[in-house]
Amino acid sequence: MRYIYLFEEGNKEMAKILGNKGAHLCELVRIGIPVPPGFIISTDACRRYFEEGKIGEDIKKEILDALKKIEKMTGKKFGGEEPLLLSIRSGAPVSMPGMMDTIINLGITDEIVEKMHDKRFAYDAYRRFLAIFGKVALGIDGEKFDELLEKKKGEEGVDESNLSTEALREIVEEYKKIFRVPSPYDQLFIAISAVFNSWNNERAISYRKIKKIPHNLGTAVVVQAMVFGNLGNDSYTGVIFTRNPSDGSNKIYGEFLINAQGEDIVSGKRTPLPIEKLREINPSLYEEICSVAKKIEMHYRDMQDIEFTVERGNLYILQTRKGKRTAKADIKIAFDMVDEGIIGKEEALLRIDTGSLAQLLHKRIKKANRRIASGLPASPGAAVGRICLSADGAYEKGLHEKIILVREETSPDDIHGVARSQGVITIRGGLTSHAAVVSRGLGIPCIVSCNIEINEEKKEIVADEKILREGDFISMDASVGEVYEGIAELADAEFPEEMKAILSWADKIRKMKVYANADLPDDAKKAMEFGAEGIGLCRTEHMFLNPARLEIVRKAIFGDKNSLNKLLEMQRKDFIEIFEIVGEKPIVIRLLDAPLHEFLPKYDELLEKKIKGEMSEEEEEIFETVKKLREENPMLGFRGVRLGIIKPEIYAMQTRAIIEAAIKVKKKRILPYIEIPVVSDANEIRIAKRIIVDEIEKIFKEKNARINYKIGTMIELPRACLVADEIAKEVDFISFGTNDLTQTTFGFSRDDAEEKFLRDYVERGIISEDPFAILDSKGVGELMKIAVEKARRANEKIEIGICGEHGGEEKSIKFCHSIGLDSISCSPYRLISARISAAKAVLS
Amino acid sequence: MRYIYLFEEGNKEMAKILGNKGAHLCELVRIGIPVPPGFIISTDACRRYFEEGKIGEDIKKEILDALKKIEKMTGKKFGGEEPLLLSIRSGAPVSMPGMMDTIINLGITDEIVEKMHDKRFAYDAYRRFLAIFGKVALGIDGEKFDELLEKKKGEEGVDESNLSTEALREIVEEYKKIFRVPSPYDQLFIAISAVFNSWNNERAISYRKIKKIPHNLGTAVVVQAMVFGNLGNDSYTGVIFTRNPSDGSNKIYGEFLINAQGEDIVSGKRTPLPIEKLREINPSLYEEICSVAKKIEMHYRDMQDIEFTVERGNLYILQTRKGKRTAKADIKIAFDMVDEGIIGKEEALLRIDTGSLAQLLHKRIKKANRRIASGLPASPGAAVGRICLSADGAYEKGLHEKIILVREETSPDDIHGVARSQGVITIRGGLTSHAAVVSRGLGIPCIVSCNIEINEEKKEIVADEKILREGDFISMDASVGEVYEGIAELADAEFPEEMKAILSWADKIRKMKVYANADLPDDAKKAMEFGAEGIGLCRTEHMFLNPARLEIVRKAIFGDKNSLNKLLEMQRKDFIEIFEIVGEKPIVIRLLDAPLHEFLPKYDELLEKKIKGEMSEEEEEIFETVKKLREENPMLGFRGVRLGIIKPEIYAMQTRAIIEAAIKVKKKRILPYIEIPVVSDANEIRIAKRIIVDEIEKIFKEKNARINYKIGTMIELPRACLVADEIAKEVDFISFGTNDLTQTTFGFSRDDAEEKFLRDYVERGIISEDPFAILDSKGVGELMKIAVEKARRANEKIEIGICGEHGGEEKSIKFCHSIGLDSISCSPYRLISARISAAKAVLS
Repeated sequence: MRYIYLFEEGNKEMAKILGNKGAHLCELVRIGIPVPPGFIISTDACRRYFEEGKIGEDIKKEILDALKKIEKMTGKKFGGEEPLLLSIRSGAPVSMPGMMDTIINLGITDEIVEKMHDKRFAYDAYRRFLAIFGKVALGIDGEKFDELLEKKKGEEGVDESNLSTEALREIVEEYKKIFRVPSPYDQLFIAISAVFNSWNNERAISYRKIKKIPHNLGTAVVVQAMVFGNLGNDSYTGVIFTRNPSDGSNKIYGEFLINAQGEDIVSGKRTPLPIEKLREINPSLYEEICSVAKKIEMHYRDMQDIEFTVERGNLYILQTRKGKRTAKADIKIAFDMVDEGIIGKEEALLRIDTGSLAQLLHKRIKKANRRIASGLPASPGAAVGRICLSADGAYEKGLHEKIILVREETSPDDIHGVARSQGVITIRGGLTSHAAVVSRGLGIPCIVSCNIEINEEKKEIVADEKILREGDFISMDASVGEVYEGIAELADAEFPEEMKAILSWADKIRKMKVYANADLPDDAKKAMEFGAEGIGLCRTEHMFLNPARLEIVRKAIFGDKNSLNKLLEMQRKDFIEIFEIVGEKPIVIRLLDAPLHEFLPKYDELLEKKIKGEMSEEEEEIFETVKKLREENPMLGFRGVRLGIIKPEIYAMQTRAIIEAAIKVKKKRILPYIEIPVVSDANEIRIAKRIIVDEIEKIFKEKNARINYKIGTMIELPRACLVADEIAKEVDFISFGTNDLTQTTFGFSRDDAEEKFLRDYVERGIISEDPFAILDSKGVGELMKIAVEKARRANEKIEIGICGEHGGEEKSIKFCHSIGLDSISCSPYRLISARISAAKAVLS
Repeated sequence: MRYIYLFEEGNKEMAKILGNKGAHLCELVRIGIPVPPGFIISTDACRRYFEEGKIGEDIKKEILDALKKIEKMTGKKFGGEEPLLLSIRSGAPVSMPGMMDTIINLGITDEIVEKMHDKRFAYDAYRRFLAIFGKVALGIDGEKFDELLEKKKGEEGVDESNLSTEALREIVEEYKKIFRVPSPYDQLFIAISAVFNSWNNERAISYRKIKKIPHNLGTAVVVQAMVFGNLGNDSYTGVIFTRNPSDGSNKIYGEFLINAQGEDIVSGKRTPLPIEKLREINPSLYEEICSVAKKIEMHYRDMQDIEFTVERGNLYILQTRKGKRTAKADIKIAFDMVDEGIIGKEEALLRIDTGSLAQLLHKRIKKANRRIASGLPASPGAAVGRICLSADGAYEKGLHEKIILVREETSPDDIHGVARSQGVITIRGGLTSHAAVVSRGLGIPCIVSCNIEINEEKKEIVADEKILREGDFISMDASVGEVYEGIAELADAEFPEEMKAILSWADKIRKMKVYANADLPDDAKKAMEFGAEGIGLCRTEHMFLNPARLEIVRKAIFGDKNSLNKLLEMQRKDFIEIFEIVGEKPIVIRLLDAPLHEFLPKYDELLEKKIKGEMSEEEEEIFETVKKLREENPMLGFRGVRLGIIKPEIYAMQTRAIIEAAIKVKKKRILPYIEIPVVSDANEIRIAKRIIVDEIEKIFKEKNARINYKIGTMIELPRACLVADEIAKEVDFISFGTNDLTQTTFGFSRDDAEEKFLRDYVERGIISEDPFAILDSKGVGELMKIAVEKARRANEKIEIGICGEHGGEEKSIKFCHSIGLDSISCSPYRLISARISAAKAVLS
């Protein structure tokens, strides 16, 4: 096995053994970009190092051989006069910026520094080396070096770049008291070991956990001849992007320092100049940099983030990588590159990071105070408002001022308060908890599983040891899941012009229809705005949960004919309003799904009243009902079609509201898809269909009118997947409710799992991704596949879609495409990314 | 299409069109048994009748043609002098005894009765016909006829069989005032229509619902020449069983009446004589009956229930069917018939009704007072005891007196009370509710979903409008699910001698091993007694739930090292005790499965204390924990391996208890199977295995001893089935936990579904059988099949079993055999029937 590669021997495909940085340095050499000579110690060597606890003698020998070649290429000798100095940098197969260690200027000792010609440069290099080597390779507290430097700067009254040679020498003397300087070769091997070891430092491990990078990859080490941007005023160091990473405009962007080393920019010790400035100072160099940047970009056919150093007028590129960019820039760059003929439309689509597109549709935080808490980003956007600890409070105050509702968790009872809040923060719950689902539906920023504490009695919250009272201002960026003290400055959403073109490309390519989940007219409007081809899920219970209606809903549920009629009128009005918006596009309306107790007061609250003797007679009655309806596991309880069958008057009423509304909206031919939820057997559908069809036929007779409609079911239970053939014979369409299907397939309650074990599972890699965020193709997906195959075999005309949270997530969309779904449906705010994801699914 | 069949034209295989009764009458004719001539109107005719609302003219013609043939065979004319009289009987494809209607002596009118020679017989036949025809065919209240008869009996001062001709004539006169007598042919067609209609009478419909007989089968009608057992003292009527249906002994058994019609026996108006009496009265007839009975039994090769009539010395058989029998008789008859060479061992096994075998192992009710309630038979056996409404009360009083615990439902907190009760009755819950599972485990009779009400405050129960107070006696027969007032007389269990032989046949034939579920030493003893080949499931949490230990368990769960050590000692002791009993047979021990809050006080109770301000500081702390651990859907929550991974000290402790105990029991080589529950991904097993194996290796080192053990998992979640290949690579065995698998596959919470909708579903045939009682082969079974295939492909040595409730149920066992399971496990009391069912699975 071979462990060492010269830059001339690798290419960009070899990141797995050479690391990302190393592979791209090889690539640059390959295409003729000036790069200081060097070699790479492979990740294989790293893994062997971890096994054996030391660098093998054979590897050491290979390193020395490679070093000889570098000496030849540079004409300098390592450890000699005017010596070859080295930089030793880590380079993992997957970029882990700033997580691991780098050592520069390696190869100086007392003896060597004496022989060097430019004394100021020599001592400056030496003191830099000593500090970084001491800190990184020997694990000495960096403060010690910094303090000595600061002291000297104070004594001299100058900044770092103006320290005299004498001062630098004195600093070196002080530094040498901290540790004994090893020989150049010892330095080299100690530094290499240190870089290997940095793979397992705490911050690298936790970074990998977050980014789900396997711990066994190991890092490569890049050993490279130093070039110096600090050899005078014809030397520079800088970082550029080949295009503007913020707005995407096609012009290099970046900053540089004159007479400085790279770390001076990174550390922020000196303030760099914008790259435009270089055009004035040194126009030919600027041109050269632009031309090299363009060359690299054209080679990679993507915007690059490039580090360079100019040593006495000679330009060297030290690193190139794909440039990070905002969502807005991402869109513009993709569009422009197509326009410029650099890439095709398909490649442009494939490159778009749909995960960050949501940013474009929501306010962002421009500037915030201290971060005091973080949680899961459940519904994107940013908000500022006063803390409010109760839904009733938020409902009241929300009319006049900006409120952020902070709750342990929310329940359907809280929806009125949620709707009037600028943002919602909950302590419990996951990405598919009630708060998350409702907020997303309403387009309200929401953070769940947030690490704050609520003290209900004192009306306070505690976040990062800071106590805040109800009414105090906080800010939140729910796109990333962070909470800040006080009032942050917000920036409005920006929807780049190029988006339209890109979406039109996507729409032409994708095979699946893209629908939106929308329960209320406002959602439906948003859905149409963002290009939904229909409504894939309209949850009727959200219409029930309007607080003004709850009383009526309660009575209706318990068989009060009068209330049922009132509810019919209300639902009919709701549907008319939505139908007017949706027009002739399909609209899937799900009949009542929620368990009945969701519409009743909470047991605990009633119990409290009961015990305190504060219960009215009416409440006594309600309490009895609540007691009767209580369930151990409501998720697996009396809901959906079970309810529809046992209390047929509810589905009949809902059917009537839908059909009468559709008939009423005369101008358009409304196409309602009536959906039966929580089905586990085809017989349930047969019975529910009978209730629905009988009611429809009655209406047709009464009104002397007919409309088209379809009847289908939501598949959200494993058994429904397994008997999908029988089900398919009974219905026109099926839609996978993958939230619930994930719950039953895994046996994970989404309300409970997140904080109790699921987060830990994901962090520890027991489960590679949160299955409520990204569809579990192995388990849940397997069931879907079985269902699709069975259903299509039994009914070739059947329409099959998905309407769970997964319908807006790229990986899940790709899976849905692969098993041949006809449509996906997601919340309106995810439509843009869903349309692109659906196209990417076709392309990849 | 043909609608009418003479007896000569059918056979016993034609029950679907001729009905059960008709088909067997044909069969009797076929084998030369004397049967009065007749014909059958097919079920096709019945279905056509329902479609057309009347008997078709073509069918009428066919009937008249057939009738002509009967006239020829009997030499009598229908509607003539000394006329042919007919019986018109219903006969469904599936026996529905007593559910539908029969009309006898049809074909008399005023005119005809006058022409008949034997006046007394003529008027007796006429008045019988009028009463039954009026009631059955015309829907007149039967009371009217009975009252007139009673009145006349009163006036005459004699019983029915001694009424004078004159008196009978007067009765006829009275009857005729009620309705006008139709002509013989009109009688015939009205009667046939009436029998058809009786298919849809209320009691027939509800019988079919209960017995799950399809409503669209329709009934056939048997039209047969009457023979008369009431033509004098050489005439008889009777019912016999070819063997004793109570104890199975090989001797005809039954009763007869002299000079009577069959209805006289059925109605109970006259007291019949035991059939032995006939041997004295008429030895040759007795011999003839015995010989015909034997002939019929030999033909059917099974014990028969036969109706006969002797008309003036001539024996006629009117019906034969398979004789109902007790479980004890079932066993004896099967054994004897093998012994007599009538059937083979395999057929004997196939015939045994395993569903009723549990009767043999439990007390029965011999004589009870009024039935006041009924519910689901959750754990078989009978009991008498005083009502107790609290588990604590049962625990206290149960030491000194017989208690029946009556609760809304039970929870793990109640187990101490359950264990000291004679029987348990709950209002909520299904066959797999906590009460059901625990009672079965403990062998205590239990009825769940029972229709009584509890008034906690008044310490009363209300059952069938009867109020009973705590301390009052009730009796229960949990084998059938019935509750009786006061003290019933109980009979001990009887275990027939022949059982042993039959079990040995079964054991030789069956391919699957039969294990028992046993959590405590007593269960394990019972299991060994009933022939378990090992323990298929030992639930360790039942060891935790001992009330004396709960305090320690609580502390241990929250990390108290000291308590954890105490618990270790206790569990080790438990295991030593069980290992001593089980010996070298495999014993599958499931690590902690239950959610933690099951070991803590109930939230509601604590909340109540809290609100009332009665909470101690310690309780405050517990309350906080309970609040934190509360779950929306505990079934899908923080339990099983999830707990094992997040709190590894628990599984480590349990492992230590198991292994140290196994090492301690030196005389035997204990073979523990350590089982990891609630797994959804192979990674969970990898981590749990690491915890377990590390602990085991530590113990081996400490003790300087090694033992054999296996590690496996319970598959109880759909996802585990779908990734069974990955799982199988990690384990030595898997065991299907089909209770939980049924819950998640259907999305049915067993605690909630039963009373809220499942019972209704089963009654309405939406789901053909309670999936918690009988394995749902279509959904749950399909997942198991997928899992077995995947697992065997990945690990051909893997042992696969089932340990859910289904492991003791015949249909489910058959399914398990069909998909190739290696073993089944069930509660000790179901072992006998499971062993036979496993053999039947091989044979069928």
